[in-house]
Order: sequence, then structure tokens, then C-alpha cells
Amino acid sequence: MPISSKDTPPPNENIASKQTYPEDQIHSSLTANHYLSADIYQKELARIWRRHWIYVGRADELKSPGDFKVLRIAEREILLVLDRSHKIGAFYNACSHRGSVLCEAESGQLKSGRIICPYHQWSYGLTGELLSTPRIELGSQATSLGLDRVLLTEWAGNLYLNLDQTSDLTISDAMIPGPTTLNNWPLSTLKVRHRMQFDIRCNWKIFWENYLECYHCPGIHPELCRIVPLYQAGLATDHLKSGFKGEDRVASGVESWTETGRAIAPTLEGLSKAEVKAGHTFLEIYPNQYIVAHPDYVRQVSILPSAPGVTRVTAEWLFAPDVLENPSFDPAPAIEFCERLLHQDARVSELNQRGLAAKPHHQGVLIDLESDVWDFHEYYRTWMKDTDAD
Amino acid sequence: MPISSKDTPPPNENIASKQTYPEDQIHSSLTANHYLSADIYQKELARIWRRHWIYVGRADELKSPGDFKVLRIAEREILLVLDRSHKIGAFYNACSHRGSVLCEAESGQLKSGRIICPYHQWSYGLTGELLSTPRIELGSQATSLGLDRVLLTEWAGNLYLNLDQTSDLTISDAMIPGPTTLNNWPLSTLKVRHRMQFDIRCNWKIFWENYLECYHCPGIHPELCRIVPLYQAGLATDHLKSGFKGEDRVASGVESWTETGRAIAPTLEGLSKAEVKAGHTFLEIYPNQYIVAHPDYVRQVSILPSAPGVTRVTAEWLFAPDVLENPSFDPAPAIEFCERLLHQDARVSELNQRGLAAKPHHQGVLIDLESDVWDFHEYYRTWMKDTDAD
Amino acid sequence: MPISSKDTPPPNENIASKQTYPEDQIHSSLTANHYLSADIYQKELARIWRRHWIYVGRADELKSPGDFKVLRIAEREILLVLDRSHKIGAFYNACSHRGSVLCEAESGQLKSGRIICPYHQWSYGLTGELLSTPRIELGSQATSLGLDRVLLTEWAGNLYLNLDQTSDLTISDAMIPGPTTLNNWPLSTLKVRHRMQFDIRCNWKIFWENYLECYHCPGIHPELCRIVPLYQAGLATDHLKSGFKGEDRVASGVESWTETGRAIAPTLEGLSKAEVKAGHTFLEIYPNQYIVAHPDYVRQVSILPSAPGVTRVTAEWLFAPDVLENPSFDPAPAIEFCERLLHQDARVSELNQRGLAAKPHHQGVLIDLESDVWDFHEYYRTWMKDTDAD
Repeated sequence: MPISSKDTPPPNENIASKQTYPEDQIHSSLTANHYLSADIYQKELARIWRRHWIYVGRADELKSPGDFKVLRIAEREILLVLDRSHKIGAFYNACSHRGSVLCEAESGQLKSGRIICPYHQWSYGLTGELLSTPRIELGSQATSLGLDRVLLTEWAGNLYLNLDQTSDLTISDAMIPGPTTLNNWPLSTLKVRHRMQFDIRCNWKIFWENYLECYHCPGIHPELCRIVPLYQAGLATDHLKSGFKGEDRVASGVESWTETGRAIAPTLEGLSKAEVKAGHTFLEIYPNQYIVAHPDYVRQVSILPSAPGVTRVTAEWLFAPDVLENPSFDPAPAIEFCERLLHQDARVSELNQRGLAAKPHHQGVLIDLESDVWDFHEYYRTWMKDTDAD
Repeated sequence: MPISSKDTPPPNENIASKQTYPEDQIHSSLTANHYLSADIYQKELARIWRRHWIYVGRADELKSPGDFKVLRIAEREILLVLDRSHKIGAFYNACSHRGSVLCEAESGQLKSGRIICPYHQWSYGLTGELLSTPRIELGSQATSLGLDRVLLTEWAGNLYLNLDQTSDLTISDAMIPGPTTLNNWPLSTLKVRHRMQFDIRCNWKIFWENYLECYHCPGIHPELCRIVPLYQAGLATDHLKSGFKGEDRVASGVESWTETGRAIAPTLEGLSKAEVKAGHTFLEIYPNQYIVAHPDYVRQVSILPSAPGVTRVTAEWLFAPDVLENPSFDPAPAIEFCERLLHQDARVSELNQRGLAAKPHHQGVLIDLESDVWDFHEYYRTWMKDTDAD
Repeated sequence: MPISSKDTPPPNENIASKQTYPEDQIHSSLTANHYLSADIYQKELARIWRRHWIYVGRADELKSPGDFKVLRIAEREILLVLDRSHKIGAFYNACSHRGSVLCEAESGQLKSGRIICPYHQWSYGLTGELLSTPRIELGSQATSLGLDRVLLTEWAGNLYLNLDQTSDLTISDAMIPGPTTLNNWPLSTLKVRHRMQFDIRCNWKIFWENYLECYHCPGIHPELCRIVPLYQAGLATDHLKSGFKGEDRVASGVESWTETGRAIAPTLEGLSKAEVKAGHTFLEIYPNQYIVAHPDYVRQVSILPSAPGVTRVTAEWLFAPDVLENPSFDPAPAIEFCERLLHQDARVSELNQRGLAAKPHHQGVLIDLESDVWDFHEYYRTWMKDTDAD
């Protein structure tokens, strides 16, 4: 179990709001080379990105048999297809014959009910078996020429794939704090109303480091700090012990993460009073997704590295189906608020990446308020140590 | 003689048009790495592209002494110059002094009758000898400072150069089926009327693999298949044995490869009845040219790799001089037909290249109808094995 | 003392203007690989560019405490800041905490009187000490978390930095002919009126090779040769012995390097009669600057490599402050004349770079008129031999 788990936050204690840290509480961060080197990046793809479960979209994106979607992950290209029994299969998007791409478009519908290679018209069933090879009969050899499958699993309406055919990880293993954190949210029935995609010119680990501490929040996210007192104090969930006199929740009178602080939809069914009052509940799934569940909507953000210094971010806003059916429903207050957050984080993440290249052999430090970053580095070091993928 | 030669096609036999292949007739193709790796690409430049004869243009492009043309081949830059005795010389386009480029333009006329370096005005004769060095006299050392020659040969009005100074290959050695294939065509007297140049985002070997089989033709080239029944059956020349009931020729009533199927110029003098009736005769010169001789015109296509995944293609349409002198002559039906073919092939070649990067360690298969591709791979493996260039 | 020094020119002798060189006076230049290889380029950054004093601008660019400027040198990023005691400090532009860039803009004013990291608001004094870390007190550890200083020195109003913290070179060590060459010029009080910056697509050594010989001048710089008879003869300063019947000075009637040949400003105070008569006096500071001092103005040109085949050039024209205060003063005749020179040199430098890639394993030759280029290569070889930076 290489994924580090977090303890639940300790009860609040009324201690001084500013604390003198003992010297040994300053830890070293990763050296700059980890964010810049093409060699290390390739090792990360092999040891982390091709061995973990990676979020690739919502199951309901593929509605009818033959619907397909093409993805690029860790330098591979994957084809997702809905078959006749309404199961989704994941295959490398390459013909077994001479390797041509099978589906050219990013998404679409296989009207023939088959996956047909555009080059020599070899055709495959929606479950990947080789069905026909024009002008020749391959006989028993056809069996071994079906499409190469990639592991795929579904959780709460989310699809995750794993490029390691022999993986014994489950998607639950990767969930922080744990697999039951969002149990009360009806995530599997929610629908994506808005999706935003953009590139940040930073290493993927800088994205996580930024996410994992709120020490930067007062300077970078004034709007967010206004509605979450904990963040105004520069603290993340785990640091209530640091003398903050409140809880991990939105401010009094605030209901959700929106421009106005008010919920924009009815409270989702099934949430506990504490979950409603908190206003936000977090789930991380290393290395590529975090989910923030609010009382009225859910936002999930996923990343894919495309170079040592470039990370693609996808953010989705999900709402209850009946809310979306209401023609007067306006999701803008939630979307605008969180898009601004993402852009604020993107800016400082890019400054961080740029600065790591400025100085030779730079190695930063982590303070106690960044202990989650340290935990992330421990997770990272554990996986990178593994030499099987070399 | 590392170039594999092909047998002449066997006589037609009336066998079943669909055949069950024994299992051992499926062969492995090259692994994906051969189309993607920068290291293998560099080895290919050294072992194949800098050791074979490479088509570089028509001899009649240089008309008057002092006419020149500059070429980029396998990361080298070559200067072709017509000297006073109307011979063409090929030199590296670099001054012996400090290495400046000699001719900046792609082509032109050396009005001074000398090759003069634009940097320090060292001047060379049209045959490459160092003639003058301003402000100093180099005495006997000038002899060794002439321009470095590159091997050049002419065949049928075509110029070929070889970057291997010690090569003992002849251009005839590389001709498939053989050096006499186009003997009846007056290729040396034909003139280029149209030249087209474009980049395909694929490895140069994918270009050849596509050329060497017609298994893709029914799906990709409907217009061509309409005029060549053999291709409509997915067969290339060597596969008449595969049960096809016809010959390697254009359909009845078709004369040439044009939009209408009719010849657009009188039949060239000297062709045999069989050559006229066939409508097309092919010659390959590995690794960079194929020639298709029709009764009324000749088309030749050459390639140069510019990156592992990028290949530059040049196609030329040649006609008899008297045809070109006729002001009402319209070459468009031949040009448009064949440009469409090239673009159809370019599209699937690019899909093939993209797909080879989709899946890790991909290795495709070749079927019997692709035996010419296997032969090409054998040629490739033979030359790449050679370790002299390491 | 690895920098080679030049002897003063010998007295003129009346010898034949064209000389037959003994054969052993032709030397080999560097092989082409030295201008093309990414590996050698990285070694040059480590062994030369990060170990010498590099010109980074005029001291008077930073006027008030808090004024800053950001520079990119040899893949590092440096922050220059003027402190309260009007001293300029140079620091890597990266926060000690997690490495974010400190100053995003190219230049500006730190209005707070501190260097504040935009990410977590750690703040540093203008002399680099860590002043505050929001929400925590680091205690004695703060001392070790000040900004990393880079060596900086000032000479004659010019700022030079050295990325080698342990360097025992002085800026004077690098001056050719010597540190007193420009003693009579009031360089420290002159002001930059015009600055021009552009990229040349050539290796940085080609820039110097071009500068260090005037063998190319007659063919490339007709306007310059018209005002400097020495150059019209293809000679640089050191080659008066080569039979040239004149001196190293501008032609009779010419006063300075301008379009008209006339000075555009009063003669600077303090120059000797010989310096005024010469019209130009040169100082080189390897590897990145040369200064040409004229009687009426000074021009200094500096370079920074940005890739094996790309060099950024900055040229500055400096005049006496009282000249610049005259509203009718027109610097154009000096600027236009010298910009043309730079562009003429850039063109042939790019031809040289292109030609070095044309031929495999090219190695040019140097003639006697290029002995300064040979000296530069000796300097280069000496520094590159050093294996400490490996």
C-alpha cells in the first residue's frame, strides 16, 4: 500500500495563532531537477502514470453502443468504446495489422457497429475481437489479433484506466482520505454541466504541491479566503491544530463555493448535517484527480502531464439531473468562482516552475503548514524507488 | 548485392479468388520503435541514406555553364554546378576556408563563372578547384583546398548522388525489377512539365510500405481501382497468382492513368504493344525513388527523410518535348489524378505513423498480399546490419 | 591567467602589400562539431559562460533603491536590485522556500522596499536577507534562507556578474589588449542613448571569429572600408606588419565611425591626440563583450548564447551627458552606420553557421591574417580543457 493515508484532523485546541517552529520541522523539498529533467519525467510516466488508475471521463459520455472517445495518456493513445451490452471497453487505438490508428476523431459513433481500420479495413467487434480481414481468411490466427485491452474500471460514474495490465491496485487504494469519504454524495447520478480544459506550464507535481497547502491562499485567493476562514489563516484541513479557532468549513452564512457564497441548487439528498454545514468535502486520487463535493454540486479536477513543464488540466462541474432540467438554472456563480481559483493557482504554479529553472541545483524547504506536500513527496519517492519499470 | 530483386510474375492461374492462408504466412512487421526512434533514424541516415544513390533532379535543370542548384540530403547540403564542358559537378556547399555556405539561393547562375564564397571571396572554378584567395597567395597548399566532391551519376536524364565516396554500388544495382525495365521509354529526352512537393508526417519506411502493397487500394483509391482491375482486387503486381483472373494492366478501354482513363498525349515512340496495353510499368530505386511509365507520360516520385516522422515527397510529371510545345496541350487530367492518389496515400500513411506511437512496443503483422513489404524489410535489415557506419 | 594577451602592434614597415605565406602558416580551425553539438554547448556554458564575468548592463539603469532588473544568462535567471545604500546586488531570481520566481517582470520598482515572493509572500530585504515568513517564525533558521548571491562587479559604469561563486578572476584579467586601454575615456559618466537587441542564428564563437579578423571587410563592409584604410586592405590591428603602408586609424579627414565620417559630438575630454586621430580604440572582454571607443562616442556590444546555433546580441551607443541634454543632438549618423555593420556581420555569420552543417566533419583553415581567431581558439581550448566543471 504505497499510498499514504491521512489521519482525521485532531479536535480544535485553543493555542496561540502564531507558532515558533522547532528547527527540525523544516524539511527539504524535491530538488529542481525533479521538475525539469526529461529523464526523470520518462521514469515518472513509467513508474507512476502507467501504473496508477487514471481518470478519463464520465461513463455517461458514451450513451449508445458504438459511441467512442479517444484519449492520450502518458504518451499512449486509448480508445474507449461502448459495446452492445452497454459495457465500456478500453483498447490501444492501433490496428493489430500494421498499426494504423483506428479512430481518427476525438469522439464519435461507430455507425457500422464495428471498429474498422481506415487503412486496410480490418474490422473489430465493439469488444475488440478481430471480425474480418478483407480478401483473406486468417483462420485460427485471427484470435490472437484482437485489440489489446487496457484495464478500465468505473467508480461513482467516473471511468479510470490503468496502463499496467498486471496492476493489483484498486481505485479505492488511491483515495485520500479514504474510499468512503464521498459515500453520501450521489456522484454516480450527477451530470457534467460544464467542462474546462487548459494547459499549465508547470510540472504535474507542482500542481499537487499547490493543491496540498493553503499557506498560499491568503495572498493568492482573496475571494476563497473570504468564504473559508480556515484558508484565510493559511491552513489546510490537517492543520486545525495550528491554533486556528474554527473548523474546517465555510464561514457562517456561506453555503457553498460560489461567487455569492450561496448555494445555487437544492442540497443534494443524503448528506449529513455536518457535510452540509462544512460546505466542502475533499477526495484526492493520486496522481491525477481531486474531487470537491459541495452541498449543491460537485467539482472534479484531473490532470495529465504532457511534458516535464506542461500539465493539462480538466475541470468538471456536476449537478443533479433535475437541477439541470430546470431551464432557469444558472450554474455561472459556481463556475466563475472556481475557474478564477484555478487560474490563480495556475499563475503561481507557473511562477514556481520558472523559478526552479532559475537557480542551479535548487532545493527548497517545506514548513509544517506544508506537511501534506511532504506526504505527497513520500508517496512520490515510494513509487519512483520501484525499479521494475526500469 | 544487398538489394533484393524480384522475380517476374508467374503466369496467371485460375484459382479461387479468396484463399485461406497457412498460419506461417503471417510475418512480423518491424517494431514501432523503428518508425519513432531518433537513434534509429540517425543510423538509417548513416547506413542507408548516405550510402545509396539518391535522385536529386533532372540533368536539364542546369542548362548553361554556371547554373547551380542547392540540395539538402540526409542533413548534408550539396551544390550542383554545370561546368564549361557541360558536365555537372556535386560538391558540399561549404567553403574550404572557414566553412561558410557558398551558394545561398536554392538555384541560380554564377555570373562570374566562378563559385565565390560570400564571406571572404575565396573563389573556386566550376569544377571545384581553388582559384584565388584575396590578399594572400597560398602557393602549393591551394591544391588541397579545392571543394570536396560528392559522387554523381546520370541515368536517363536523372541525376543521382551518393554521399559515400567509396561506394561501389551502381545506380543499376538498385533498380527493381531491373535496369532494363524502362528501356523502351525515351526517359532521357522527356521534360518535366509539373513538379509538386509536400511533407508527409510519417517515417520514410511507411511511405514505401504503402507503395509496396495494394491491399489498401480498394478502400483508399476508388478512382484508381476503377481503371486497374488488379488493384480493385487488392493485389499488387506480384500477386497475380493469388487467384486474380486478369493481368497487370489497366482495364479494357483505359489507356493511361488520367481522370478520364484516356491518354492525354500520343503514345511515346519505341514502346512494345504489351507496354502500351499494360498502361503502366513500374521501376523502384531504393531508398528514394519510384518511376511509373505510362504510354503517354512518365511520373516519378522521390522522397527524402527530414525527421523520424517527416518525409518530403517530390513528384514530377514528364512529357515528350513536342507534346509540351503544343500550346493547346493540357496535362491536368494526368496531374490531378495522380495528385489525388498521393494525397490519399499521405493520409493513411499519417494514420499509420500516429498509430505506431499509440501502443507500447507495437509490432504489426504482414500477410501474403504484403510480401513486397516483407522484401523491403529484408532489404532494410540487410543494410542496417552493416556496422561500418557505426 | 588563461586569457591570452596581445602584444602592441609593431611599427609599420614598408613591405610588399601581397605576401606569399609559408605553408606552415595555415592552421586548422575548430571542427564543425564545436559549432553544432548540444553536448559541447552545455560544456561551454559550464566551463566558460558560468565562470567568466558577463556584462549585464549599465549601473545607472537602476536609479532608486528598489529598482530591479531580471536577466537570463547561461540558463540561469538573475535578479539585480539596488539597495538603500545604492549598491547593486545580484541574486538568483528564486525564492528559498519552494523556488518560485521572485520578480516576474523584466524590470521595475519594488515599491514595498522588499523583495516579496508572489507565491507565499516570504519577503527579503534589498540585500537578500530573509525578513519575514507569514504565519510562522522560522527563528534562527531564517538566517540560512536568505537569497543566494551571485558575484557582481562594476567597471566604468558597466556591471558584470560571475556565476562562479569561487571565481578568482577579475574583470581586468579578461581585458584585451589590457585594463588600461580605455583609461582616457570617461566611460563611467557616459549615458546609453540607444540600445539594440537581436538574435543571430550562429554559434557564439562564430560571432567572435567574425569580429577578430578584417579579412572579410573589403567584401562585406564597403562603407567601413571607405573610412578605415587598414580594413580596406583586409587587415586587423595586429597585421600592420603585413605590408600595409598606413596606421591603425581612420582615413585622413575622417573623425569617427558615422555615416558621414564626421564626429557627431564634441571630442570627449581627456583623450590623447593619438586616440583622437585613431578614430577608434578597441577593448575585448571575453567571452561576451567588446567596446569600441571613438573620439565622440562609445559603442559596446555584448553577446549571450541561447542555443548552439543562436546568439543574442545587444549593442549600446553611449554619449556624454551634456551632449544628450542638447535637444538638437542627432545620434542617427552613428547609430545607422554601426547597425548596418552589425547586420552585415550577422548575415555572413549565419552563412558560416549554415555551411558548417553542410559537410560532415568539416574542419576549416585559418590563414595568417586570421591569427587573432587562432588566439581566440587557444583561449577557448584552454578553458574547455578544464575538467572541474564536468
